[in-house]
Amino acid sequence: MSHNTPSLLDRLSLNQETVRQWSLPELADGCARAGVRGVGLWRAPVQQFGVAAAARLIRDAGLRVTSLCRGGFFTAADPVERAAALDDNRAALDEAAALGTDTLVLVSGGLPPGSRDLPGARERVADALGELAPYAAERGVRLALEPLHPMYAADRCVVSTLAQALDLAERFPADRVGVVVDTYHLWWDDTVGAQIGRAGGAGSRLAAFQLADWVTPLPEGVLLGRGQLGDGSVDLRWFRERVETAGYRGPVEVEIFNPALWARDGAEVLAEIVQRVRTHVV
Amino acid sequence: MSHNTPSLLDRLSLNQETVRQWSLPELADGCARAGVRGVGLWRAPVQQFGVAAAARLIRDAGLRVTSLCRGGFFTAADPVERAAALDDNRAALDEAAALGTDTLVLVSGGLPPGSRDLPGARERVADALGELAPYAAERGVRLALEPLHPMYAADRCVVSTLAQALDLAERFPADRVGVVVDTYHLWWDDTVGAQIGRAGGAGSRLAAFQLADWVTPLPEGVLLGRGQLGDGSVDLRWFRERVETAGYRGPVEVEIFNPALWARDGAEVLAEIVQRVRTHVV
Repeated sequence: MSHNTPSLLDRLSLNQETVRQWSLPELADGCARAGVRGVGLWRAPVQQFGVAAAARLIRDAGLRVTSLCRGGFFTAADPVERAAALDDNRAALDEAAALGTDTLVLVSGGLPPGSRDLPGARERVADALGELAPYAAERGVRLALEPLHPMYAADRCVVSTLAQALDLAERFPADRVGVVVDTYHLWWDDTVGAQIGRAGGAGSRLAAFQLADWVTPLPEGVLLGRGQLGDGSVDLRWFRERVETAGYRGPVEVEIFNPALWARDGAEVLAEIVQRVRTHVV
Repeated sequence: MSHNTPSLLDRLSLNQETVRQWSLPELADGCARAGVRGVGLWRAPVQQFGVAAAARLIRDAGLRVTSLCRGGFFTAADPVERAAALDDNRAALDEAAALGTDTLVLVSGGLPPGSRDLPGARERVADALGELAPYAAERGVRLALEPLHPMYAADRCVVSTLAQALDLAERFPADRVGVVVDTYHLWWDDTVGAQIGRAGGAGSRLAAFQLADWVTPLPEGVLLGRGQLGDGSVDLRWFRERVETAGYRGPVEVEIFNPALWARDGAEVLAEIVQRVRTHVV
């Protein structure tokens, strides 16, 4: 156990989707009991609970919201769809501000139906960032562009590498557009260490750091196959060291989508995560 | 239809696994009838039929073997496993030579069980190429390293991008170690055009060009979800133009693993492929 054990565990955040069996009150209570001080929230359950009520609940539990998932999905070429997507992202920014988080995670969206034009879709992502950045800045929220694993390039996210995310983010001021480093999406990339270095330092783009492990076989649809920390192929400690070397001291958010975790007692899952962080991340 | 229609269709090759419902004699007969002059073969069905008999069958049908799939799987750290893998690759090179193909496709292998060391596994790939290259050269066969989609990095292939494959191949003479450009594995990568350019030209590394389309949702295990040409997100024509601009004039091999194609009449599938090549590739 290294000397930074306490500080890293202090920075631990639990993404709500990791324990989707929990209601928002259960999440707030469970994290507070476990000594986990941050939560990453999702828009749909927050809206269902009420944004102001959710903000109060989390604050009253002594927690803070480390990120809101998620905006984005702005690759539509159709002008009406595009305008609707931008409106929805403005609403997401309002929600983020109301929740007191400075980070809105953005998943760019995939190819429009029938399209094979990845460069065009990526350019529309840049356009959307340009449209949203001033609105985000007014609310004190940073747009955090998340590269997703290349297996999602067609139907979910045309931004597949940290290099691509940085190419897009760097068109804008660093305090307005950052990037998300999620180990599940980036672990395979032999350039990711260099790109984390590029993202960090003065004017850092490192807006969020998320952990999940890579396990196989992948399930149908490849959405819900993320592994508990330590169960898979990702060198999580290497990633933690890289983002820290690049100057990142923000939340370390655990985001695992896995029905096997959802089927268990939430408190037990969270205790296991804390233990796994001690063993595989710190 | 551009002026190079006839030459591209002349260069068309059918990978055996695309029509695995066909026996080797059916494959030879079906391709000859369809005017497709090349076949990509797999080791297991060739071994079952007999290597010499398969070579004779293909030759007598007026066809040629454009590639043999596949060698590789040499990332084991254990010395005994490693020696066995190298022996098996020497056997694959003997088989390739007997079949009259100059191309042995290599899938590197994934991480050894319990390992998280991607750089180490990739270095063992380089070591294996070094051990096999002289043996391959003696047989007139080129080692064709295939980068596989990053979703296979853990369990199948630690070489995930064309850049990585070239980094490895370039340690050896170009006539001994080349690379495979398979649209299914590389389509998402915004650097692939530049890397195809790097691979081509004088001393070209472009050893094989394979076509499949990307369709979603991916099936469980993500092995058998490749799409018929034109059904998915890949700009196949762009890829064909890029490899031709880089000087490639070799076989254009269609390699689609899809149970829906296997359930149909092989001749009908092949006729559809030829039509799709005319529409989406030429």
